[in-house]
Amino acid sequence: MKFARIKQRFVKDELHDLGFSEKLTGNNRSLNTDGSFNVKHSGHERLTLEDVYNSLITMSWSKFSVVILLWFILINTFFACLYLMLGTEYLNGARGHELLEQFLDCFFFSAQTLSTVGYGHLSPSNYWMSGVAAFECLLGLLGFALATGLLYGRFSRPAAKILFSDNLLVAPYKGGQGLMFRMVNGRKTQLIETELLVILSLMVEENGQMVRRFFELPLERTKVNFFPMSWTVVHPFDENSLIYGYTAQMLKESDMELLVSLKSFDEIYSQTVYARYSYITEDIVWGARFIPMIKKQNGHALIELDKLNHHEEVALPLVILKSEEH
Amino acid sequence: MKFARIKQRFVKDELHDLGFSEKLTGNNRSLNTDGSFNVKHSGHERLTLEDVYNSLITMSWSKFSVVILLWFILINTFFACLYLMLGTEYLNGARGHELLEQFLDCFFFSAQTLSTVGYGHLSPSNYWMSGVAAFECLLGLLGFALATGLLYGRFSRPAAKILFSDNLLVAPYKGGQGLMFRMVNGRKTQLIETELLVILSLMVEENGQMVRRFFELPLERTKVNFFPMSWTVVHPFDENSLIYGYTAQMLKESDMELLVSLKSFDEIYSQTVYARYSYITEDIVWGARFIPMIKKQNGHALIELDKLNHHEEVALPLVILKSEEH
Amino acid sequence: MKFARIKQRFVKDELHDLGFSEKLTGNNRSLNTDGSFNVKHSGHERLTLEDVYNSLITMSWSKFSVVILLWFILINTFFACLYLMLGTEYLNGARGHELLEQFLDCFFFSAQTLSTVGYGHLSPSNYWMSGVAAFECLLGLLGFALATGLLYGRFSRPAAKILFSDNLLVAPYKGGQGLMFRMVNGRKTQLIETELLVILSLMVEENGQMVRRFFELPLERTKVNFFPMSWTVVHPFDENSLIYGYTAQMLKESDMELLVSLKSFDEIYSQTVYARYSYITEDIVWGARFIPMIKKQNGHALIELDKLNHHEEVALPLVILKSEEH
Amino acid sequence: MKFARIKQRFVKDELHDLGFSEKLTGNNRSLNTDGSFNVKHSGHERLTLEDVYNSLITMSWSKFSVVILLWFILINTFFACLYLMLGTEYLNGARGHELLEQFLDCFFFSAQTLSTVGYGHLSPSNYWMSGVAAFECLLGLLGFALATGLLYGRFSRPAAKILFSDNLLVAPYKGGQGLMFRMVNGRKTQLIETELLVILSLMVEENGQMVRRFFELPLERTKVNFFPMSWTVVHPFDENSLIYGYTAQMLKESDMELLVSLKSFDEIYSQTVYARYSYITEDIVWGARFIPMIKKQNGHALIELDKLNHHEEVALPLVILKSEEH
Repeated sequence: MKFARIKQRFVKDELHDLGFSEKLTGNNRSLNTDGSFNVKHSGHERLTLEDVYNSLITMSWSKFSVVILLWFILINTFFACLYLMLGTEYLNGARGHELLEQFLDCFFFSAQTLSTVGYGHLSPSNYWMSGVAAFECLLGLLGFALATGLLYGRFSRPAAKILFSDNLLVAPYKGGQGLMFRMVNGRKTQLIETELLVILSLMVEENGQMVRRFFELPLERTKVNFFPMSWTVVHPFDENSLIYGYTAQMLKESDMELLVSLKSFDEIYSQTVYARYSYITEDIVWGARFIPMIKKQNGHALIELDKLNHHEEVALPLVILKSEEH
Repeated sequence: MKFARIKQRFVKDELHDLGFSEKLTGNNRSLNTDGSFNVKHSGHERLTLEDVYNSLITMSWSKFSVVILLWFILINTFFACLYLMLGTEYLNGARGHELLEQFLDCFFFSAQTLSTVGYGHLSPSNYWMSGVAAFECLLGLLGFALATGLLYGRFSRPAAKILFSDNLLVAPYKGGQGLMFRMVNGRKTQLIETELLVILSLMVEENGQMVRRFFELPLERTKVNFFPMSWTVVHPFDENSLIYGYTAQMLKESDMELLVSLKSFDEIYSQTVYARYSYITEDIVWGARFIPMIKKQNGHALIELDKLNHHEEVALPLVILKSEEH
Repeated sequence: MKFARIKQRFVKDELHDLGFSEKLTGNNRSLNTDGSFNVKHSGHERLTLEDVYNSLITMSWSKFSVVILLWFILINTFFACLYLMLGTEYLNGARGHELLEQFLDCFFFSAQTLSTVGYGHLSPSNYWMSGVAAFECLLGLLGFALATGLLYGRFSRPAAKILFSDNLLVAPYKGGQGLMFRMVNGRKTQLIETELLVILSLMVEENGQMVRRFFELPLERTKVNFFPMSWTVVHPFDENSLIYGYTAQMLKESDMELLVSLKSFDEIYSQTVYARYSYITEDIVWGARFIPMIKKQNGHALIELDKLNHHEEVALPLVILKSEEH
Repeated sequence: MKFARIKQRFVKDELHDLGFSEKLTGNNRSLNTDGSFNVKHSGHERLTLEDVYNSLITMSWSKFSVVILLWFILINTFFACLYLMLGTEYLNGARGHELLEQFLDCFFFSAQTLSTVGYGHLSPSNYWMSGVAAFECLLGLLGFALATGLLYGRFSRPAAKILFSDNLLVAPYKGGQGLMFRMVNGRKTQLIETELLVILSLMVEENGQMVRRFFELPLERTKVNFFPMSWTVVHPFDENSLIYGYTAQMLKESDMELLVSLKSFDEIYSQTVYARYSYITEDIVWGARFIPMIKKQNGHALIELDKLNHHEEVALPLVILKSEEH
């Protein structure tokens, strides 16, 4: 049967060469649609400063804002307590009498010191106060030095923003059929020497057990020099295809997943960037073709990003399944 | 005829391998002379912070200055209004009586807070005022942290500044003819392992229709280890050339375009840099050769950048077009 | 005997191709477990600013903090002395009468100037004082500009944090034996195109002398596309292995060392990263296999980092040593 | 004779492939010992901001300090004049009566504003003064933002500091002779995948004219994986060598130059670095060998940088020049 035919083509070690493990079996995706692997870590790792920096670089902007604000409030609270202990009588201009007022005087003196604004209506009047304030200044400047690096690091981290079509189409292709998806560069950066690797992941029977296997999917084209337009990626759905003759039902049963991995050179960031995407059986549309998303306009080509997912129904050419004997 | 001969050599898919699409047909350039592609985008993209950063990095310096100045004025206006609402009676040193004067007091207090200069002749006198001012300091410092990154990002973005000669010359070359242009590095940086790709774009007849086709143009040399001098790029205009025997008129009719793409390693920026240029039929000078732009002087070689475009008329050797039958 | 057999396979120059020298002989490790080479430098090198920067980038965080603090104290002490020489009578707000008090007034005025907090309760009252203060401001700002770069440089220096298993196991492998160790990515960054080079270092007899030799160790797999899971590296311990038939005693006598060198592309830092590790004979466990450290959990794979070193005893298949004559 | 033999081996175009031009002829060096090319530029280039930045990044530290100091003085002088024009009566705390005193009041107010120290003993008392001061603050912060980037840029520019031996030795090598020089990494950074290219440049007779020609010199080894020790580079001076049988006199007459070009990956800067060096005939020592600069010490290898140039006289094995006829 078909499964038998495929099994022979298995190169068992390919799985490992891609870096996936048999442990990743079952009906789970290997790759989430945001490009991250479906893997979690547990266990005691010694958290280093580099890991903290790493988190601060990769967390969302809203989370990052909260962290910055909290840091500002906490460090000021800490120094406010210190100044309170030294005594507000040594703080020129402090007029609070109750504890809360005294704390607020100290808190705002701390804030004005940490940020080096130093209006001067509050100022230290003895040497201990001055010493702590000098240390806080140093800390404040280093803190904002760090923030400068963090903000630069967050922004300058090159990342491709490739837009992938939501669907995989089974469309007519060179007299036969082709499995297609479409991509376009969502940024205004210029991508150079773009390479594509598409991995097919299938559950197959092996020694009576269903195990997940990974194969590199042959494509019409795996590299382009420039990528200024849209790119329709085509896997020729012919006899040489591993999934030749598979029906929608069969692909669903074998928990098919297409792992798309793109590598390119971003001219603005001057660095190599990567993008990943993943399609599952539910994303396939049988008998459809993409509607062109590029048109000519006033002497230049216009890419209509809205049309990335636009496709229309189309009759598929009949694929004659040759029997295994021939 | 000649067109027929060329058509046979067409490798249709080369077009796609370069990343261009058949949609880019007609008499438009593919590449502008500044190296950007003649392509525009439309459609709803969700604008992310990264896209904004990207724009701020790539916009012109004059535009960037205006953006920075506007940001400074707007944010100060916003905080001035806030302080006005809290009441100028809580602002030590504010002496304005009319609304405009009060607004200006608040505006300059805001400016002195945002920039952390904090002279102190204006200072907050209640806790609400102090709280807003503390928050503005934080924002100011983050804003200037961001500006630091932006300025660094704008300057440290490596970019080759290759100067290309304005004209393509048809000059004598090894007993025959050659299509030539000249390049020189316009920066004092050292370029290493410089590679060149020249693509010929032509309108050709195919199935009764005129379509644009792209071919890689063979060059005398496509790579140099170092690039300290000028480089005269030569396409031997012989029998093996796709455009062998083309007259000026024929090239014009076929809307010829030469797409020049250069890749190199910049030693100062320590990064890979790219440059692109484009020539069209109007740029060709028939029967001319470049005047040397390098001379010896006091024990070193001197490159005279002014002479990059200098060429002189020269008689072309006769090219005998062999008939197709031989 | 065995040593003889190995000697024939020696490619003497391989040693040099790896960059090691015969001078590195004897029972020393070539590589420390932290990945640094067991090499020291002596002699007069002119220390450049770049070397100082280099040290500041690579020193430990505790050392770095001390350097920053010392710099802050020393530079303020220097300027305090300068202000003291100019006379505290030209410092508005200075109230100290004794020398120490005057020094402290100057010291804190300096600190408030260097950090640009400038409360104003201390301010210069003549032009010389103002001039020195203006110069100190400039220096302070440049100093903190430098600190910004240093902090960014320290954090953004990409470094792989690969966790290596403590032990080398001799485990059953494909009917024979295999020498194995296990690695996992200790960061949440994504490693791409990971390559591995393992070098075997042995003391061998050559012309009656024991000299250290280096060989590339063949591995089951030397490259993976992605590295989201753990990777068990296997050297098949078969007839083709250089150390085939070696006993624990023999390996110890020949001062065996395994030099592990890993190269990968870090997607977050967008740069190539390297990791090195070294195993010696004492790290080998004979007859043991790794306990899986990956399990399925709620639809994703879970890597338990705590289990990296977990292994269990296992019987080794007998390895029949063929005699040399066959 | 010999020259004839060499001429036949000439691959004329190699010259161009290295990026050198016939224009670089005569008795000039192609490469200075600091690694720069012996080439100058003339002509009108439009100076862009990027070129200015470039200069600021590559100029010496002493020159850079002067530029920063001048910028600080000039911009403060400019703003001081502006404040003077607005009138010192609008500057709280200004006590100068004569023009010079007024100017100095304005100058230090400007300095305190630009550096955002803002003590407050000088402060603007009308809106025009405040407006100019606010603008100066913005400029000051941007200026120091730029300085931050410049300092980081200057320091983080990766550059190999390879120490080359002063002399080229003709030493005994494998029973014959070898042309040798020695290199060592002068930094504590780790160099990985180091590649070497050595080009031989000679004046040779061609069509009756003396022209300069370039050849790649074969080496014993052109690549090492790691470079923790010293590396003695050897060109086997045997029959296959282009300069086989050349005497010191003959090399001098042909204005020999060895162009050394090294490429490596610096692990600390995480970037590719380059180094260049050049030897001429005067640097050759005939009949000498390098004294080892590495010794064992307390369990590690010690590289003595002082000994890089140490060599001792040694008798050269006789090289029998085979006559051309055989």
